[in-house]
Amino acid sequence: MFLADCQARLAFDLISNTWNAVVVWALRHGPRRPGQLRAEIGGISPKVLTETLRRLEFNGLVTRSTYAEAPPRVEYELTDLGRTLLHPIGVFGEWAFEHADDVLAAQDRQQI
Amino acid sequence: MFLADCQARLAFDLISNTWNAVVVWALRHGPRRPGQLRAEIGGISPKVLTETLRRLEFNGLVTRSTYAEAPPRVEYELTDLGRTLLHPIGVFGEWAFEHADDVLAAQDRQQI
Repeated sequence: MFLADCQARLAFDLISNTWNAVVVWALRHGPRRPGQLRAEIGGISPKVLTETLRRLEFNGLVTRSTYAEAPPRVEYELTDLGRTLLHPIGVFGEWAFEHADDVLAAQDRQQI
Repeated sequence: MFLADCQARLAFDLISNTWNAVVVWALRHGPRRPGQLRAEIGGISPKVLTETLRRLEFNGLVTRSTYAEAPPRVEYELTDLGRTLLHPIGVFGEWAFEHADDVLAAQDRQQI
């Protein structure tokens, strides 16, 4: 595996925007309306959520469905390709849960 | 796991700079001199490599050792904490290897 090659860069670019990973993760249990996503994620503005969903759609990771109800309903859902990202994101989340405190402690030592 | 929390953001910030992941991966087999890293990685300037190594050192992921030889020798090595990142980076690299073409194909479809 050559991490500097095009494929690896594309992969890291995809999660280089933290919101991409956050929104993919928030869709892991099935379709969600934008308001549900905002409530589950917390701290994401409607504008940033919309931009993130468009970016994920552009990359084939999410589909958008509209339902002609009153009021109209919009839902987002992971594609099969999008679901393949759940494992790497989960592994990374586990790493963060176990080791982020060690990184923060290292930063504190450097700043003394 | 709440991906929007501080720990997860820190983790994603760490790999949000693709070079961080690339350099950690290039150190997976043991200590390396900067010139060796540049040769193995390819396409990384001395300046960017130095900045990346300093950032990894600041975050407790890499140590720098100097040897009083002629000419002086400098080597970088993963810390125990840095080695814990190899698994998530590897999982992500595998994802890229398997699925990056699908993402590129999705992008092409959007642009037609």
